[in-house]
Amino acid sequence: MRNFEFHNPTHLVFGKDTQKRVGELVKKHNGGRVLIVYGGGSVKKTGLLDEVKQSLKESNITFFELGGVVPNPRWDLVEKGVQIVKENNLDFVLGLGGGSVIDTVKAICMQAVYDGDAWTDFYLNQKEAQNALPNGNILTIAAAGSESSPNTVITHEKDKFKIGAYSRAVIPRFAILNPELLYTVPKYQVGCGASDILAHLMERYFTNEKNVDLTDRLIEATAKTIVHYTPLVLKNPKDYNAQAEFMFAGTIAHNGLLNCGRIGDWASHGIEHQLSLFYDIAHGAGLAIIFPAWIKYVYKHNINRFAQFFQNVFGLSYSLCDMELTVLQGIQKLEDFYTSIGMPIRLRQIGIGDENFKLMAQKAVDSKSVGNLVPLDPLDIEKIYKLAL
Amino acid sequence: MRNFEFHNPTHLVFGKDTQKRVGELVKKHNGGRVLIVYGGGSVKKTGLLDEVKQSLKESNITFFELGGVVPNPRWDLVEKGVQIVKENNLDFVLGLGGGSVIDTVKAICMQAVYDGDAWTDFYLNQKEAQNALPNGNILTIAAAGSESSPNTVITHEKDKFKIGAYSRAVIPRFAILNPELLYTVPKYQVGCGASDILAHLMERYFTNEKNVDLTDRLIEATAKTIVHYTPLVLKNPKDYNAQAEFMFAGTIAHNGLLNCGRIGDWASHGIEHQLSLFYDIAHGAGLAIIFPAWIKYVYKHNINRFAQFFQNVFGLSYSLCDMELTVLQGIQKLEDFYTSIGMPIRLRQIGIGDENFKLMAQKAVDSKSVGNLVPLDPLDIEKIYKLAL
Repeated sequence: MRNFEFHNPTHLVFGKDTQKRVGELVKKHNGGRVLIVYGGGSVKKTGLLDEVKQSLKESNITFFELGGVVPNPRWDLVEKGVQIVKENNLDFVLGLGGGSVIDTVKAICMQAVYDGDAWTDFYLNQKEAQNALPNGNILTIAAAGSESSPNTVITHEKDKFKIGAYSRAVIPRFAILNPELLYTVPKYQVGCGASDILAHLMERYFTNEKNVDLTDRLIEATAKTIVHYTPLVLKNPKDYNAQAEFMFAGTIAHNGLLNCGRIGDWASHGIEHQLSLFYDIAHGAGLAIIFPAWIKYVYKHNINRFAQFFQNVFGLSYSLCDMELTVLQGIQKLEDFYTSIGMPIRLRQIGIGDENFKLMAQKAVDSKSVGNLVPLDPLDIEKIYKLAL
Repeated sequence: MRNFEFHNPTHLVFGKDTQKRVGELVKKHNGGRVLIVYGGGSVKKTGLLDEVKQSLKESNITFFELGGVVPNPRWDLVEKGVQIVKENNLDFVLGLGGGSVIDTVKAICMQAVYDGDAWTDFYLNQKEAQNALPNGNILTIAAAGSESSPNTVITHEKDKFKIGAYSRAVIPRFAILNPELLYTVPKYQVGCGASDILAHLMERYFTNEKNVDLTDRLIEATAKTIVHYTPLVLKNPKDYNAQAEFMFAGTIAHNGLLNCGRIGDWASHGIEHQLSLFYDIAHGAGLAIIFPAWIKYVYKHNINRFAQFFQNVFGLSYSLCDMELTVLQGIQKLEDFYTSIGMPIRLRQIGIGDENFKLMAQKAVDSKSVGNLVPLDPLDIEKIYKLAL
């Protein structure tokens, strides 16, 4: 086990009706003038936006709005948000949505207090922002885990780059998690969310670090929860308890606890980001395509670790005498799971061919090294794209 | 799953040599004048106290000392600590030790800024302290989980009361966790620590709350780690990786994450506290005696929950057709585990008879209700003591 630090100060407020406490929570964190950020119209349709405004008003909090965040959120909108913050002297940014909204919020918070160019310094050049406006969120999709993480991923269309930044300064002050808000998420988005959460767990699980049993067990516990509850959530979106398990698992998967003492792989995320960048597909769908291909490409590096995952998460415990068979059966089980929750598992299913493989593979390594379990070069990545065809 | 809030801001700094960062961490939390609290001479013998002083000096931090904390820590010493803090205008309290030291630190921190009597108001009358001096710790025994919890348990000799208090104001700002510091813990104390950690997990597990699968799985994962690693730690105390798993499990068991959405039982803790109070035995030893007796008394309330615990933690998965048999075998396995790590499992093993059962049972319910899974009255508690004879 490696030395580590764990410090996640996000205040989770979980359960029914908790969105009504947003005014109280913003106030607690000294927010008086707030930018509310959201995506399309769903927060208007569901009434969430009105509820939030009501709660802020009751706490005498002034607010401005910025809608229009799209999946694979864009830097352009970040700049719009920064403008509103600066022109109106705002002191807190509140996200209503999922990872795209919250990642946009974090980017706004970094740029708003930074004299330089946050995109170049914190995303492209991977420096860590030291300051940011405080932020909080009300989660409406369980997926990205951004609600209590120091991470933000943004796409810059002009630069043609989709890349993540890390800063402790943007860890949300609070996250309001009401499973009822997940009732209206479209089934395809639920599948994408489940795929993203499972990917966060697998990225952490597949490590070269030895002696990480406790976190192994905790990751398996969380992954089993996703495998068990995603079908139940899809079958009956108003099953509060299933949504609650699903939502809490999504947060735990990415709040930093499960990578204590270990270094995850993260190649599949890097490889998938190019798919989202080039074809604007949903991140979770891209991960369902890339992860099995990546496992096929690298599993021989540590057969027992992959076998252990498939044994403890997917129940493949019949025989320990042929570990490779367990892995191969496990990959099949994983693909079956993705298919059962409506995810594609091959590029051709979503109409993508090999036309950009070379370019995407090169792009993947342009800004960051790819892969900690097995470091990958562009040729490796191209082969993984081919396995995913 | 119940509505819940989770907010644990303790900064964990885990791994080799981390105690050398104590000066930096105290400074980060605005400590300039520090009271160092510790127990007997072990922190002097091992050199830890000198290392800490060195680190504080390097950060230009002034410090005072208070040694002499004993197991089942006393209110008298808290008052001494408060006096030193007030006379010298100190602003931070640093504990070097285990639960007894850290609980003493928290009590000092509450009383030092409180005009009333903290013992009466926060312990006896269970009010929550709203303010406290900041505190941090360097953990030298994995057991109580106090290093990142809002809890403190103190014994008042004059009042003849051992009782816990809860306040978010005393959650440690940081906890330094170096598994190497556990190398010199005596075997009996290791056993007591394991018993305490396992009890924290079982108290949380045995709940009436339904639909708590994720936290069930996380508790089982942590409990399995204790069952697996305690014998390895006892066999070879210098096995760094075994100590690391053991130590991290102790923190996770009690940092609040594992009771999200559920209400634990906590009867065994309340019943044990009377044993420690009347006979000054180690808390962990008392729990190893009380917990099996408590399970025998209440398991019929929810046979499946107990069977699930024993299946998933102790591997009793052969048959699901006779759940009661699984529970009975599980109790035996649990007792065997306690015995194997050097813990007593019956009162007579440590020379305690039935002379105070009535009095202790009454005392247990004097300050708090006892038992959430099954509420217990003094007669029930007396029967549990009898089962533990």
